[in-house]
Amino acid sequence: MKNVAVFGAGRIGRIHSANLAALSGVQLKYVFDPVPAAAADLAQTLGAEVASIETVLADKSIDAVAICSSTDTHSDLISRSAAAGKNIFCEKPVDLSVPRAIACGEAVKNAGVACMIGFQRRFDPTFNNASQRLLAGEIGNPEMLVVTSRDPGAPPVEYMKASGGIFRDMLIHDFDVFRWILCSDGDEAEWLSATASVLTDPAIKAVGDYDSTAVTIRTRKGRLCQINTTRRAAYGYDQRFEVLGSTGMLQCGNHTPTEVVAWNANGIRADKPEAFFLQRYAAAYRLEIEHFFDCLQSGKPFRTTVADGVAAQKLADAATQSAATGQPVQL
Amino acid sequence: MKNVAVFGAGRIGRIHSANLAALSGVQLKYVFDPVPAAAADLAQTLGAEVASIETVLADKSIDAVAICSSTDTHSDLISRSAAAGKNIFCEKPVDLSVPRAIACGEAVKNAGVACMIGFQRRFDPTFNNASQRLLAGEIGNPEMLVVTSRDPGAPPVEYMKASGGIFRDMLIHDFDVFRWILCSDGDEAEWLSATASVLTDPAIKAVGDYDSTAVTIRTRKGRLCQINTTRRAAYGYDQRFEVLGSTGMLQCGNHTPTEVVAWNANGIRADKPEAFFLQRYAAAYRLEIEHFFDCLQSGKPFRTTVADGVAAQKLADAATQSAATGQPVQL
Amino acid sequence: MKNVAVFGAGRIGRIHSANLAALSGVQLKYVFDPVPAAAADLAQTLGAEVASIETVLADKSIDAVAICSSTDTHSDLISRSAAAGKNIFCEKPVDLSVPRAIACGEAVKNAGVACMIGFQRRFDPTFNNASQRLLAGEIGNPEMLVVTSRDPGAPPVEYMKASGGIFRDMLIHDFDVFRWILCSDGDEAEWLSATASVLTDPAIKAVGDYDSTAVTIRTRKGRLCQINTTRRAAYGYDQRFEVLGSTGMLQCGNHTPTEVVAWNANGIRADKPEAFFLQRYAAAYRLEIEHFFDCLQSGKPFRTTVADGVAAQKLADAATQSAATGQPVQL
Amino acid sequence: MKNVAVFGAGRIGRIHSANLAALSGVQLKYVFDPVPAAAADLAQTLGAEVASIETVLADKSIDAVAICSSTDTHSDLISRSAAAGKNIFCEKPVDLSVPRAIACGEAVKNAGVACMIGFQRRFDPTFNNASQRLLAGEIGNPEMLVVTSRDPGAPPVEYMKASGGIFRDMLIHDFDVFRWILCSDGDEAEWLSATASVLTDPAIKAVGDYDSTAVTIRTRKGRLCQINTTRRAAYGYDQRFEVLGSTGMLQCGNHTPTEVVAWNANGIRADKPEAFFLQRYAAAYRLEIEHFFDCLQSGKPFRTTVADGVAAQKLADAATQSAATGQPVQL
Repeated sequence: MKNVAVFGAGRIGRIHSANLAALSGVQLKYVFDPVPAAAADLAQTLGAEVASIETVLADKSIDAVAICSSTDTHSDLISRSAAAGKNIFCEKPVDLSVPRAIACGEAVKNAGVACMIGFQRRFDPTFNNASQRLLAGEIGNPEMLVVTSRDPGAPPVEYMKASGGIFRDMLIHDFDVFRWILCSDGDEAEWLSATASVLTDPAIKAVGDYDSTAVTIRTRKGRLCQINTTRRAAYGYDQRFEVLGSTGMLQCGNHTPTEVVAWNANGIRADKPEAFFLQRYAAAYRLEIEHFFDCLQSGKPFRTTVADGVAAQKLADAATQSAATGQPVQL
Repeated sequence: MKNVAVFGAGRIGRIHSANLAALSGVQLKYVFDPVPAAAADLAQTLGAEVASIETVLADKSIDAVAICSSTDTHSDLISRSAAAGKNIFCEKPVDLSVPRAIACGEAVKNAGVACMIGFQRRFDPTFNNASQRLLAGEIGNPEMLVVTSRDPGAPPVEYMKASGGIFRDMLIHDFDVFRWILCSDGDEAEWLSATASVLTDPAIKAVGDYDSTAVTIRTRKGRLCQINTTRRAAYGYDQRFEVLGSTGMLQCGNHTPTEVVAWNANGIRADKPEAFFLQRYAAAYRLEIEHFFDCLQSGKPFRTTVADGVAAQKLADAATQSAATGQPVQL
Repeated sequence: MKNVAVFGAGRIGRIHSANLAALSGVQLKYVFDPVPAAAADLAQTLGAEVASIETVLADKSIDAVAICSSTDTHSDLISRSAAAGKNIFCEKPVDLSVPRAIACGEAVKNAGVACMIGFQRRFDPTFNNASQRLLAGEIGNPEMLVVTSRDPGAPPVEYMKASGGIFRDMLIHDFDVFRWILCSDGDEAEWLSATASVLTDPAIKAVGDYDSTAVTIRTRKGRLCQINTTRRAAYGYDQRFEVLGSTGMLQCGNHTPTEVVAWNANGIRADKPEAFFLQRYAAAYRLEIEHFFDCLQSGKPFRTTVADGVAAQKLADAATQSAATGQPVQL
Repeated sequence: MKNVAVFGAGRIGRIHSANLAALSGVQLKYVFDPVPAAAADLAQTLGAEVASIETVLADKSIDAVAICSSTDTHSDLISRSAAAGKNIFCEKPVDLSVPRAIACGEAVKNAGVACMIGFQRRFDPTFNNASQRLLAGEIGNPEMLVVTSRDPGAPPVEYMKASGGIFRDMLIHDFDVFRWILCSDGDEAEWLSATASVLTDPAIKAVGDYDSTAVTIRTRKGRLCQINTTRRAAYGYDQRFEVLGSTGMLQCGNHTPTEVVAWNANGIRADKPEAFFLQRYAAAYRLEIEHFFDCLQSGKPFRTTVADGVAAQKLADAATQSAATGQPVQL
């Protein structure tokens, strides 16, 4: 039985807590949240105790912590948890600052603990199936990747101010997908060009951010990746990618709530995609926590490490710079 | 907290047990199975106790039982559980004999307990969504229903011998779908014609059963239903229906493991359907048990009752007779 | 150069005339229609002459005639054209009377001319591709066929009165599809059951016809076919079939005007099918006339003969009888 | 009756000739080709005469010419035809040199003749339907365009040497699609970044060209366009685009030879796209020639003019420069 504590009882903290509480061999022992009522509510629902960070880290029976708190607390909690000898699951990103993210990696390494970063898309059944088939050679050598990543609506402008900008906040996932799909053989980004606009809401411009972006990455081997994103797709949450290889293409579509198709005088209508990430990635969140504990048990390496978090963060920084200057970045 | 016992620790018993054990407010207390090792294994996995039928029925703390044992035990367990004042969830069918199924309904009624029959297709997200949209008037008045219901492979011939035949064993679900979709306004089957063949395995003929069937039902209002089934679809488990209404059609497709589409020189290939009923109806099994306890809690009526089980059984009997004689049956 | 005359300048006559006029090596010489203005208009459009039936048949330079006139004139025109030594393309059906249709076959045989019946669905690119792949063994031995055949709206009741009824007027095509797909190895229908309703317009009932039908056919080899039709599908002209074989299934979908898919807050919407038969079967009409002249040139047999017309007519008669009596028909 | 001459009896010349010969009111009078046998063959097939350029231009009865000869002859033939007072249909591109293309536009303007450039994608039923629905406001204001444009295989390296490079030879169509879809309200490209690789054949690198490209364009209004292309898609000719608007998305899929879907143990397989441009754009080629003569008749403006050709050429030049330097181009 692994004893676990969760830091953060917000939206994503509740998801991870419920998923890990449902795993056999895992016991959710503590919940911490700066808002006591949030911690208490989640702890009660899942039969856990509310505890302070200090209590959690001092409890020798705790094997692992899940860091689901706000982004600005990640690096501190990683360092302290590592120092206390806890294995760590941390929601992306590691940190908005690449140097601090790198420091987290070193803290983890020095402490000899395991640390997984929650890039849940790698656990999406559709995306993961494509990745496995690509690795198995089904389409030969990968050549091009087109990522479509669109949110159904923008977060509050207040949130955006502290988010690090759309490239760090939203495209961080897409940069990880790029590395996962096009760089699995050690290839890496060599050249990145980004451009961006504000097309949906002037308030986004007022805080110095964008709502629409177009990023291109070329790797050392000459592979090409294009990412298109928007904060506001009228039809909902659109998460697709397609990877072209030398002998074929693997195309990943959206998940939909049902397989009902309605035929009438206006056409033939299927479901739009799942509403947002909690729905689309419900299975992915479950599978990534399962993976975390499976690896802790078996000693196998995590699919997503601090190094992946750092690498994605570097791409996000490069894209931010490229969009600001209008010039590409050499990596 | 509702205390529950499960009768039957086979394939479907394990599914229902796991689902009800995961419900908040529900406690799986007892497991019974004629094979002690099966009961012990399931009980241990889910933290329940092994108990005899007698112990279960004598325990006043037990609110409900889930009957997941072999078909020939259903009617006896329903009667005894009802007499003991337990609420009942019973896997389909009620009984292979219509009179015995009717008697079960009376036993339940006399005892004043609640009894739900497990026609899980009514809880499939896709099928249920279509049903709700039909009821909401999206396609006007229903006129025709085409049901495609195909298994990936036949069960052992030994099983088939005791199964009551393909119409009672396999099409019982399709007959319930027919009633659910075409008869929600009180319409009923008036005329049924069935024909059947053995096309996949002579051993099936040797035990007097069929592997391929074609059933047509006309209702009192003149609505038409066609059902086609096979025991062996080479591409897997195929569960679809489409209902034509006066202003449109609702078409229910299969669920697939992923949304990956592979493009190569041979064409564009999507996933085949989920492998079999445990995969396709995983969500449905979960939702029907949830519905059972929701209704127990709220007092709302079940979506599928003994009367539904009896009605489907009558259609299965009529189809069996029609296929044997080559003549239609007036209902 | 083959010289051709067309009998009938109505809707279908105009289609066939335009298609044959566009063929290289074919000259449309004459057009006949009982309505002189119709004949004149078509003749002028395509650079042909208006002529009487007698003139056409007496002209030794005429190699072939295309009979596109009303159904009740087919058998007479076939007999006279055959007697005059003309090769014949005749729109379906041969005749509403099976004996007269058989007599046409004998007239053709005795005269030693070639006669093709226009079952255009066999030339539809999608349906024909499925047929060829079935014959090539792609799905093994055919076992079941499900035909969905729905019109967007009923013809005028006046037309229906003289049409021979829905089975002879509309399902004649579906019966031919059944034979084409399930009976290509010499298998034949053995048992047929039909039922039908009036669900869309009481006026149809008043003239003794139906608007909705459900037909089941079992062949000597035990193959099963189900056909569902309606005169009024709110979403348009729906022409699909799927054939299950021992190793797979071939499923034929509708053709659509475009491949545009619109995503919005209500879902993901594709085109409904082509409006009606002139649009859906535009390519089929072109290809069947091409086939007619190719066969005349090469001496190869036609894909659809008078015998096919007679066989489909017998099934239509059987279905008419079955729907009227409520009893199946042994064939 | 419009009399027409065709310059060029190669692959595309034969397509256009057959299409215009089939139009009512249009007479193909002359065919010219530097290879006499090619001209003679085409002329004979369609009942036209072989003639020299001089003869064509001197013949007062000729209303229009269709320039389907090699790219390097376009500007000369446009100028001479304009000077001779002929209306002009010219295959894309106008000329590989922007200044010469601009000069063509002036020659046409000065001569007062009409000149249409053959960007056939604007006449593809799917693409054109999307364009019309976009213009009708179905998805609100356009924001992003993703164009996937992939050939099934590279042309001979010898051809590539003289082609002007992949951006001018292949993406010229995609640049026109960009302008057609995103700039219909007068918006224009403001910033373009291109990168490219050789991933399929080193011989392409040897002649200084690329086989894989990724282009991003930002317009003055901040709209974003991404184009991805390859010379070699293993699954065939892939021609899609999707345009995101403020209230939805229009997605244009490939055309396929049939609507057959095969289900077997490996999955569910649909047709791959039409083989190459002659198949995919068969309808488009027919419709653009029809449009040309309709406009000549009615005096309405062409959908694609020399100015469109020049604008696309400028984007191709910019992309060529950007890919070579690694720097974006301001337009």
